[in-house]
Amino acid sequence: MLNFRPILFAIGLMLAVLSAAMMLPALIDLADANNDWRAFFATAVLTFFIGGILVLMNYDEGAVNLTIKDAFFLTTASWLVLCAFAALPLIGVGLSYTDAFFEAMSGLTTTGSTVLTQLDSLPRGVLLWRALLNGIGGIGIIVMALLVLPYLRVGGMQLFQAESSDRSEKIVPRALDLVSATAQVYFGLMILCAVVYGLLGMSPFDAICHAMATLATGGFSTHDLSFKFFQSPAIEWAATVFMALGALPFVVLIQAVRGSPKALWRDEQVRGFVSFVVSVTLLLAIWLAIARDIELTTAVRLVAFNVTSIVTTTGFASDDYTLWGPFAIGVFFLLTFVGGCSGSTAGGIKIYRLQVAGLLTRRHFTHLMTPHRVVTLSYNGRRLPSDVPFSVVAFLAIYMATAGVFTVLLAGMGLDLTTALSSAVQAIGNVGPGFGDIVGPSGNFASLPAPAKWVLAFAMLLGRLELFTVLVVLRPEFWRT
Amino acid sequence: MLNFRPILFAIGLMLAVLSAAMMLPALIDLADANNDWRAFFATAVLTFFIGGILVLMNYDEGAVNLTIKDAFFLTTASWLVLCAFAALPLIGVGLSYTDAFFEAMSGLTTTGSTVLTQLDSLPRGVLLWRALLNGIGGIGIIVMALLVLPYLRVGGMQLFQAESSDRSEKIVPRALDLVSATAQVYFGLMILCAVVYGLLGMSPFDAICHAMATLATGGFSTHDLSFKFFQSPAIEWAATVFMALGALPFVVLIQAVRGSPKALWRDEQVRGFVSFVVSVTLLLAIWLAIARDIELTTAVRLVAFNVTSIVTTTGFASDDYTLWGPFAIGVFFLLTFVGGCSGSTAGGIKIYRLQVAGLLTRRHFTHLMTPHRVVTLSYNGRRLPSDVPFSVVAFLAIYMATAGVFTVLLAGMGLDLTTALSSAVQAIGNVGPGFGDIVGPSGNFASLPAPAKWVLAFAMLLGRLELFTVLVVLRPEFWRT
Repeated sequence: MLNFRPILFAIGLMLAVLSAAMMLPALIDLADANNDWRAFFATAVLTFFIGGILVLMNYDEGAVNLTIKDAFFLTTASWLVLCAFAALPLIGVGLSYTDAFFEAMSGLTTTGSTVLTQLDSLPRGVLLWRALLNGIGGIGIIVMALLVLPYLRVGGMQLFQAESSDRSEKIVPRALDLVSATAQVYFGLMILCAVVYGLLGMSPFDAICHAMATLATGGFSTHDLSFKFFQSPAIEWAATVFMALGALPFVVLIQAVRGSPKALWRDEQVRGFVSFVVSVTLLLAIWLAIARDIELTTAVRLVAFNVTSIVTTTGFASDDYTLWGPFAIGVFFLLTFVGGCSGSTAGGIKIYRLQVAGLLTRRHFTHLMTPHRVVTLSYNGRRLPSDVPFSVVAFLAIYMATAGVFTVLLAGMGLDLTTALSSAVQAIGNVGPGFGDIVGPSGNFASLPAPAKWVLAFAMLLGRLELFTVLVVLRPEFWRT
Repeated sequence: MLNFRPILFAIGLMLAVLSAAMMLPALIDLADANNDWRAFFATAVLTFFIGGILVLMNYDEGAVNLTIKDAFFLTTASWLVLCAFAALPLIGVGLSYTDAFFEAMSGLTTTGSTVLTQLDSLPRGVLLWRALLNGIGGIGIIVMALLVLPYLRVGGMQLFQAESSDRSEKIVPRALDLVSATAQVYFGLMILCAVVYGLLGMSPFDAICHAMATLATGGFSTHDLSFKFFQSPAIEWAATVFMALGALPFVVLIQAVRGSPKALWRDEQVRGFVSFVVSVTLLLAIWLAIARDIELTTAVRLVAFNVTSIVTTTGFASDDYTLWGPFAIGVFFLLTFVGGCSGSTAGGIKIYRLQVAGLLTRRHFTHLMTPHRVVTLSYNGRRLPSDVPFSVVAFLAIYMATAGVFTVLLAGMGLDLTTALSSAVQAIGNVGPGFGDIVGPSGNFASLPAPAKWVLAFAMLLGRLELFTVLVVLRPEFWRT
């Protein structure tokens, strides 16, 4: 049986934090003399009330050890419950619950797909709330990736068990210190990003909202045109850099901030990520410059922004790259799978899995030719734990299978193959835009049928929790014992 | 270093057999008083000459043991060389070498994509040659899957090492006997299929050609309309049954023919294949009957034929299922990946890999919840060899990655995403049709740019040889020592 008391206690605490966040849009709407403040205030009260009851009813003096099953359930349930409540204020401002839940899930999982149109004319409260969903989701994901997922050994995340294997390094040793260090770096970068955006010409409100969506690799903008609205190369470059920072492993960022910036380049995942983004950008920029007769510097900027946006799974757009022709579409389709580094806010398959899969493939080929040769694998200077290879490769296979199942589900709801496939893939990778008129970078998810929105919201949750965390809970075996 | 002498000797022998096959279309064109006979006759002479020289120059008295490296190279090289020569007669009848090579590769790999139009008005020599390519390719694939691939341990094929593990059963023990038994069953079924087709109303020529393409799960037809041409429900049902037979493991078929038909149902792969096809057919037929207001019996026939055609990777069409709507398209897209059983003429991922992947996924979930529980896996009544899990899952991951790479390559040649993706996937799975106007079941590959035809032909070869066989040879490491 599950230990429901500590689970409900933890969810209650998170709801209390969420309700505090709801007060910010309430305040800004109040300042703007916009009636929406009532919606935010009322839901904040309701959320705090329910969260508070859960905390009070389930508080326990003695320390309770969560079992692995509890941890799986808590992780899945907390994201679901938080999304359910985070959606409430959006009903208050006129969305259906389906749309509100989709938007909240998209925000908290830092996916960035939206059902809202005419963002530019919306009250600031809603816009701030969307940015806050990205911001809160981002820190939630990092903390989960650093503390919970390695312990659950999901999809090879055991590679990043900080406690057991990092003891010798100078990283903050204990979990709470790690969380506080992460929060400092995360919010520090966010403030820096907002300042830079502001200096480069964004309004303070836009700067703050976009800084949250950037560092969280979320992708919610306050403008329908996303970054194209600003018409500023400097802002685009700044966003490119901060999106990339949000997709780096935060443990390494902490080391870098604490005085060893070389740690960044020593990290195999960071090296892989940066060289991948740079080489894809150069390749595509040269192609774009030649094929579309665009000046190379412009092409590099356009490509760097959009490639970084998709690989970091942010989903901001500065241009509709689906108009660049079939080759670019093919490349961006593959990029939708890649994702950033582990222990960051980025989604997708993630760089370390692709690197480990590369190592395994090379070893497998050697093994095919010389069956009796023993090859030991190491990643990032450490020997690969014995259960990582299978975990990683199984994750890749399940990832593809999941994309296939969701494609059929969405096709069953009447979406054409391109829309169904690309929206399934982007949702599982928490990217944001897909391909086609509806879900493409210039499209909007509003016109999708309601069941498709629920399916996509579920796909976002699945992807965000690295598939297995949710799938384990869905098995009948989980509930049998 | 590779042992080139026995490799060239073997290739020479195969060329001699191929040249003998070329005489058949020569004879039929001669009988029809069609000048094409010269093309077939001339290429037969050339092929026999070159094959003969290779045999004579490389004959060796002493037995030569092929190393694993030799076997990898021989397998890949023999398919390539045979395709290169099998294409020659098609130049003689007016195709460019690109088109001829594409058609020959599509035929020998039993893929079934075609660049020829107006089949109905072509001379019988060309039509017979295409059918023969399917027929020859089919037996080549089965023999390779039974004798070579398990030994190369490619993608989990070591599961089917007949020699080492089947000793206790009553299967023909030695390799040559296995080949002869396979050939008997293969050609026996082919003759039976031709007789049934003839009795149901096909002309003798059509019956023979379609029987070869059916048992080989190849899919070349002598009519542009494929099976729709015959307008005969009985013929469609017969084809459905014989396509399914062609996709069953031939070792089990041999057992069944030799007096233990129960072996069929005892085999886990056969059970999985049949239940998969039947359940998908029923599901889709009920959906089609309701959604399109078609009588249920008609719907079952239409769906059974087309689902069997795609899952067995045959690629015959009795109806353009891409007109059935997005749900059907989504389902057929996924079916393009599945494939038939191992040790048959079918391509794709194959049923046993999906079953093993299912077992592994279940164990992985158990392992996540209870890390210290030991679960031993068995498949088809035998314990799973220790290197099979990783081989199978790695195959799945590489399969998807390959599909992705080919999608980008094809998109780079100007194909739209649906065409690029679906033609890449169908080529790797040796299926035949993709989606969209050009490569869909009513389309034709002729209008593709020449580089795309070469890329697709290479994808067919890769898929046919279970990826790793070709990929190993392409690595620089293969040539270094």
